[in-house]
Amino acid sequence: MPESLIPLKAPERDFGSDNRSGMAPDALAALLAANDTPRSASYGRDEFTNVAAEAISSIFGREVFVTFTPTGTAANISAVGALLDGPGSAVVGAHDAHIRVDEAGAIERAWGVPVVPVPTTAGKLDPEALREVLAGLAGNAPFSPTPSVLSITNLSETGRVLTCDDLVRLTALARSHGLRVHIDGARFANALAAEPGLSRIFEIGVDTLALGGAKNGQGPVEAVVTCDAAVHLKVQRAAKQIGAAASKMRFLTAGLAASIASGEFAQNASAANAAAARLAANLTAAGLVPELPAEGNLVFVRLNPELVEPLDRWCHVSHWDGRGLVRLACSFDHTTEDVDRLAVGMAHLHR
Amino acid sequence: MPESLIPLKAPERDFGSDNRSGMAPDALAALLAANDTPRSASYGRDEFTNVAAEAISSIFGREVFVTFTPTGTAANISAVGALLDGPGSAVVGAHDAHIRVDEAGAIERAWGVPVVPVPTTAGKLDPEALREVLAGLAGNAPFSPTPSVLSITNLSETGRVLTCDDLVRLTALARSHGLRVHIDGARFANALAAEPGLSRIFEIGVDTLALGGAKNGQGPVEAVVTCDAAVHLKVQRAAKQIGAAASKMRFLTAGLAASIASGEFAQNASAANAAAARLAANLTAAGLVPELPAEGNLVFVRLNPELVEPLDRWCHVSHWDGRGLVRLACSFDHTTEDVDRLAVGMAHLHR
Amino acid sequence: MPESLIPLKAPERDFGSDNRSGMAPDALAALLAANDTPRSASYGRDEFTNVAAEAISSIFGREVFVTFTPTGTAANISAVGALLDGPGSAVVGAHDAHIRVDEAGAIERAWGVPVVPVPTTAGKLDPEALREVLAGLAGNAPFSPTPSVLSITNLSETGRVLTCDDLVRLTALARSHGLRVHIDGARFANALAAEPGLSRIFEIGVDTLALGGAKNGQGPVEAVVTCDAAVHLKVQRAAKQIGAAASKMRFLTAGLAASIASGEFAQNASAANAAAARLAANLTAAGLVPELPAEGNLVFVRLNPELVEPLDRWCHVSHWDGRGLVRLACSFDHTTEDVDRLAVGMAHLHR
Amino acid sequence: MPESLIPLKAPERDFGSDNRSGMAPDALAALLAANDTPRSASYGRDEFTNVAAEAISSIFGREVFVTFTPTGTAANISAVGALLDGPGSAVVGAHDAHIRVDEAGAIERAWGVPVVPVPTTAGKLDPEALREVLAGLAGNAPFSPTPSVLSITNLSETGRVLTCDDLVRLTALARSHGLRVHIDGARFANALAAEPGLSRIFEIGVDTLALGGAKNGQGPVEAVVTCDAAVHLKVQRAAKQIGAAASKMRFLTAGLAASIASGEFAQNASAANAAAARLAANLTAAGLVPELPAEGNLVFVRLNPELVEPLDRWCHVSHWDGRGLVRLACSFDHTTEDVDRLAVGMAHLHR
Repeated sequence: MPESLIPLKAPERDFGSDNRSGMAPDALAALLAANDTPRSASYGRDEFTNVAAEAISSIFGREVFVTFTPTGTAANISAVGALLDGPGSAVVGAHDAHIRVDEAGAIERAWGVPVVPVPTTAGKLDPEALREVLAGLAGNAPFSPTPSVLSITNLSETGRVLTCDDLVRLTALARSHGLRVHIDGARFANALAAEPGLSRIFEIGVDTLALGGAKNGQGPVEAVVTCDAAVHLKVQRAAKQIGAAASKMRFLTAGLAASIASGEFAQNASAANAAAARLAANLTAAGLVPELPAEGNLVFVRLNPELVEPLDRWCHVSHWDGRGLVRLACSFDHTTEDVDRLAVGMAHLHR
Repeated sequence: MPESLIPLKAPERDFGSDNRSGMAPDALAALLAANDTPRSASYGRDEFTNVAAEAISSIFGREVFVTFTPTGTAANISAVGALLDGPGSAVVGAHDAHIRVDEAGAIERAWGVPVVPVPTTAGKLDPEALREVLAGLAGNAPFSPTPSVLSITNLSETGRVLTCDDLVRLTALARSHGLRVHIDGARFANALAAEPGLSRIFEIGVDTLALGGAKNGQGPVEAVVTCDAAVHLKVQRAAKQIGAAASKMRFLTAGLAASIASGEFAQNASAANAAAARLAANLTAAGLVPELPAEGNLVFVRLNPELVEPLDRWCHVSHWDGRGLVRLACSFDHTTEDVDRLAVGMAHLHR
Repeated sequence: MPESLIPLKAPERDFGSDNRSGMAPDALAALLAANDTPRSASYGRDEFTNVAAEAISSIFGREVFVTFTPTGTAANISAVGALLDGPGSAVVGAHDAHIRVDEAGAIERAWGVPVVPVPTTAGKLDPEALREVLAGLAGNAPFSPTPSVLSITNLSETGRVLTCDDLVRLTALARSHGLRVHIDGARFANALAAEPGLSRIFEIGVDTLALGGAKNGQGPVEAVVTCDAAVHLKVQRAAKQIGAAASKMRFLTAGLAASIASGEFAQNASAANAAAARLAANLTAAGLVPELPAEGNLVFVRLNPELVEPLDRWCHVSHWDGRGLVRLACSFDHTTEDVDRLAVGMAHLHR
Repeated sequence: MPESLIPLKAPERDFGSDNRSGMAPDALAALLAANDTPRSASYGRDEFTNVAAEAISSIFGREVFVTFTPTGTAANISAVGALLDGPGSAVVGAHDAHIRVDEAGAIERAWGVPVVPVPTTAGKLDPEALREVLAGLAGNAPFSPTPSVLSITNLSETGRVLTCDDLVRLTALARSHGLRVHIDGARFANALAAEPGLSRIFEIGVDTLALGGAKNGQGPVEAVVTCDAAVHLKVQRAAKQIGAAASKMRFLTAGLAASIASGEFAQNASAANAAAARLAANLTAAGLVPELPAEGNLVFVRLNPELVEPLDRWCHVSHWDGRGLVRLACSFDHTTEDVDRLAVGMAHLHR
């Protein structure tokens, strides 16, 4: 047990997950202000929600349709459900996709379809692997289900940014096999901060985006974004049917609207990414080279497995694979001091 | 078109629904304060959520298990799913139950079971009608599904309080046919304010309660309450699987915890009930006798159908049956002035 | 207890249901012959199944696509699933529709959608009632699900033939509200024998037909018929996914192919209808006037409820409503003697 | 293109699948005889079905409860559904399990649960791999679903017999993690012929068995077998709800009853196993050593991938992995001559 960590002050702003942080100032202030209106239309027909949808349109430089949900799982369920194509269908996604391994069977429960795994290469969904999986399913029809949705996590589960080029290749492949494309963007703001061209995803061929709020300094709010009116209608129905349509929607959307409008939303993501980059650099300098490029707000480092538990007790981290791979998640409010202290502590532990 | 309404000031605090109102002061203040903690465990493992669960225990005078969800539909889905008994099962509930006609097929979607309707008498689920429905299903087995859950809305959809005696009869009947019992309590606080003995529902034989927050001055939060540890585990799994487990749970629960602890939660319900009682009395005095006793916070009055639209434009009401039956929903913040002005306006319109 | 029935010989060919009868000669002979081919492609890719599909095309005077299933419930699930339109959808059908009350929640289980009831008039789905239900659902959107399929039972559950005119009205109404149309034709052969114009259902606007075999002298085989290639593909996928795709399909289809080709299939239906007509006439003459016109192979008569059980013990009948309404189902092999003996027995009992 | 195969007579009794064969004599004769009873109770309440259930009891030397279905997928769905434990549940099975990769998402559709893959070792579900998968799921709860059913294919998909010892280990592991155990026994008769001790599976701790008929010389019939009355009731409900309850059940069960009673059923399996053993020996002698022991009626041989298509055209085989691994399925009616001719042809092709 590395006693040496004990004198270090445990960081108040730990690195366990970006969903452990709070709300950023503009978002919180707007939520408060929203309560000054004594009555407001329910289930998202209110003005705050309209403004939030317009704010999201501004991110993409075009009119989009938006459905707000209280959780990322609800956003993914609603979006995927709107794209599925009837009986015998399936979703295809990375083997480590949140919808496949971290949502307790949500897609299977809601829509009765399997989520077929595709291998990743260096933390990114691999087009060749995808091609092989699609060929395998087609070759085994009608015993295999017929995939109709490709789900891509971006920022990927392991912190990689899928670039516009990556998405062009993946969506082209998906389209040529009859699949529509969903992006699980729980950390899309971080991907966008790293690669501004991702504001063009709908031009590239993405059908739906689950745009994360909670992990980027918002309260419990996510947004399903689409440019397709028919898909939007189905997303709305899906969200209603799974219990994701909040009656007092303005308490979800007012903060997000304000945060986007003020620039806070974009700054949150940039700040978190910068913290991760600094952390990665510090760790590398200390001989702890990250396993994957820290392109967004996540840093993955492999430690001696015995060191993970004390590290977790000290500053909360996520033990990714049970074999020493550790995820460090940076949030919008991590300071340079937070990051540097963590790197020093880990270097100390690693020695 | 009754021009006579135009001079009347449209009430800022309309009567369209209790989910159109905002958050009560203590709840809002606690939500704000919750943000002062820089990091908090996610998915409900935080201290705010623990305190909220304890606050709910205090309502029932015993330890209960609580799962918090962002919507009432999610609460109903999760609770019902935890009580269902495998293949070929069914839910039984009042023909006008929210889960049957206002949740877009949520129960069917989540659990693949039908919701079988039971007639009501004077707005309350009727034990004799229930007995007949259960006998009919049993007589047609295995062609009929086998019901395993009875869902009772209390406060009922039409504003009646099902008393302890009512619940004793209904749960005994349900039990004797092998059904477990769920209460859809979107307005349970109002029922409890009217009939304090309802704090004993778990002694009476209720298995799960979806305790509403949003309609009683909270933000987007509801609570599934049970005394059965095994059921609680299934509720938790269900909530996770349908996307109802919020990562930043403290922003749902901190306000509710504070509101219960300060007494605000109970006062909200009492205030709304008192407003409804006064409104019913005023309307009766004006010759508009409510169709059903206004036992909670809802008043049902029948108007000439042509008058409903202008009334709705003036102060928002809910046109219940498309044939002139109007629902007026009182909230915690309706003042005597609000109520009296509405009664005067409606009397004016009615003449 | 009417002892007087005891001396009457219990009919070997009872009237409990048309699914209690056996296979007609041509069907059985063809099944036997199918076994002479030592190997045959599985899952319906065999020649016997191709020929059966062609035989069904001949009924409708046009090329149709056919999916064979072992049960009527499987046929209904597969067809309805192919017509549904994504999240938040619903099926609409007569309150007494088999898919709503006699298939143990099959539609809800398979597709997660409710089956919304529509009143009938004189045993037939009523266009005005349908219009009202559709308006009610539309008026309550998004709280109500959005219906996308109308299911019509023909021959109706209570033995009525929905004529081409009936179907024109119903399908036009359905289309104008965005619904596609399924016919549950467990006894479609009987309807067709009574109204030959029903061979034009696909011109009238029906999308899918579950054409019954078992109740018309076949073994365990039903056929989902459609003219829409895209729908057919979805029916096939649905049938596979619900476990209704039989590997040794030829043992389902060979008999049906032969029975249609030889004319036996049509004769079976005509014979059963004729038996029912004779039975209805006999009963009327005896003062037992059927409640509804016996247009197909079913006769509905109301008796003193106490007489139903002894009648059932004597010759098997179906106690339809638990209040004395009795269904007498005629099969292809009921003889004049069978029918007359039943009428005499019932008259005897009734006195 | 190996022209050399052309002069060889294509076998009438090919090796594509054991579901391409016909019905064995006793089974067919009994089906015929069943039609001599003019009326029979429907939905499995008939005498033929009772006798079939007793015949199955005789296989296991104890009273068992049996539900008959027309397909193996329907049997698996019904059995698994009866064992699942509420929301957030999951099924665990071999990565190549039919229910996971060859039933078009049937389990996901029917019960809304994922099927989690476990690696195999030499074609058998591996206890250590299972232990690791279960630990991983438990470690990731509540984000991972909670498995409640282990499905074991026996005879395995690749022709291995899981022995009683194998099952003891697997069921003990499953039980200790709270899982119940299902056997997908589409070819259980072949496993039993190879390992007679498997008649004790219910003593070992198996909860449900889907006992295959079609692949062992029957028509379209499979049987879900259990010793647990409560599970049986759920299987029955599940079968009804998925459309697998055939009204004219006797045409499924009469043949199976006779075939078991006469010894034909057991002999069919032994004959198919013997054919496979002879085929494996012949191929080995010709230098084509099977990849896995041919313990049941399946032989797996790896060829030059280019040779698979001509071989398939000649005598139908199953190209298992798209990379030259070929499955040869022996049926009850394969003769020594059939087998020897195939081995000679393959040796000829291989040279």
